[in-house]
Amino acid sequence: MFSPLIKELMESLRCLPGVGPRSSQRMALHLLEKDRDGALRLAKALIEAAEGVGRCHSCRTLCESQLCDICSHPGREKATLCVVETPSDVMALEQAGGFSGRYFVLMGHLSPIDGIGPDDIGITDLLDRVAEDKVKEVILATNPTVEGEATAHYIAEELKSMGVEASRIAHGVPLGGELEYVDGGTLAHALAGRRKLEL
Amino acid sequence: MFSPLIKELMESLRCLPGVGPRSSQRMALHLLEKDRDGALRLAKALIEAAEGVGRCHSCRTLCESQLCDICSHPGREKATLCVVETPSDVMALEQAGGFSGRYFVLMGHLSPIDGIGPDDIGITDLLDRVAEDKVKEVILATNPTVEGEATAHYIAEELKSMGVEASRIAHGVPLGGELEYVDGGTLAHALAGRRKLEL
Ligand SMILES: [Zn+2]
Ligand SMILES: [Zn+2]
Repeated sequence: MFSPLIKELMESLRCLPGVGPRSSQRMALHLLEKDRDGALRLAKALIEAAEGVGRCHSCRTLCESQLCDICSHPGREKATLCVVETPSDVMALEQAGGFSGRYFVLMGHLSPIDGIGPDDIGITDLLDRVAEDKVKEVILATNPTVEGEATAHYIAEELKSMGVEASRIAHGVPLGGELEYVDGGTLAHALAGRRKLEL
Repeated sequence: MFSPLIKELMESLRCLPGVGPRSSQRMALHLLEKDRDGALRLAKALIEAAEGVGRCHSCRTLCESQLCDICSHPGREKATLCVVETPSDVMALEQAGGFSGRYFVLMGHLSPIDGIGPDDIGITDLLDRVAEDKVKEVILATNPTVEGEATAHYIAEELKSMGVEASRIAHGVPLGGELEYVDGGTLAHALAGRRKLEL
């Protein structure tokens, strides 16, 4: 019942997580009735980000420069490296505060079922960086899910053979949960309560 | 902590209704991590819709052709005209079924406080159309809010002076509610139970 351009807009909005048929209709009509400038600004931002955003050459997080803000910050210690699954996890840990080391973003986790192996999540790069930067401790902050635990365990084994200490964030992060939805206090607690992985 | 292009994308996503800082971050990262094609398709749809979608010359609803699908349908009776506030309301009534007349979309309601008067919601066009199409009954299906009621009343007064009958959808639509969120059965009932406005 809507015209082709409106229908296509509604369908395209479905690429956004959490947007179903009802809210895509509401969004499309809102933009067309009340905020076409906002729609055009969003279109421009989508194109520029989709075409311009790459990965930090050091930590692999999403950014459009060679090095992200954290990797290019001289005050961040190279000796402590925190491994996370996604850029949102970096954000969550930074907001929790209390960590002055650096990060390595896997952009995923090991998932043999989906054909995602160590090379797909940059584990070779991670080990190279640990050696290069003379990292003393690697904090494994992958999600406390089955895949996140398996990924942490895999990395810990590799680090052990290099003689580098690995720890796992511990208390407070609810099992089966997603790191990015945990509150800052709990995350700070989990970081402080990390323990050495016994293999 | 995010790079400028990612920050701008997150801020731009806030133009969507119901999208706060948390979900705009989730949406931006989802698109950049997993669906850049979806992001580019959405950008294209936004530009084409924002620049191409106008208004139906007859009922004023959003569409990119001169006449919308309903106004160009020969089977829809011209003698019964249903007046609604938004294109979503047309959609809701069509999905409820049981109405074979035509629509007139105000794209709003009278709101003296916001400086929205009869001309801003096309009431002159509405009255011209009623005269031209020899409309016998105008069903006022504006929202059952204070402004929607006032708008219905204003139109009914104008129609009375033209000798045209006005009715108001009645039972079932909850007071203070928004037409587009009412279920189809209730809407069909409200249409069937309409009564003549006594002035
Ligand atoms: Zn970096
Ligand atoms: Zn029309």
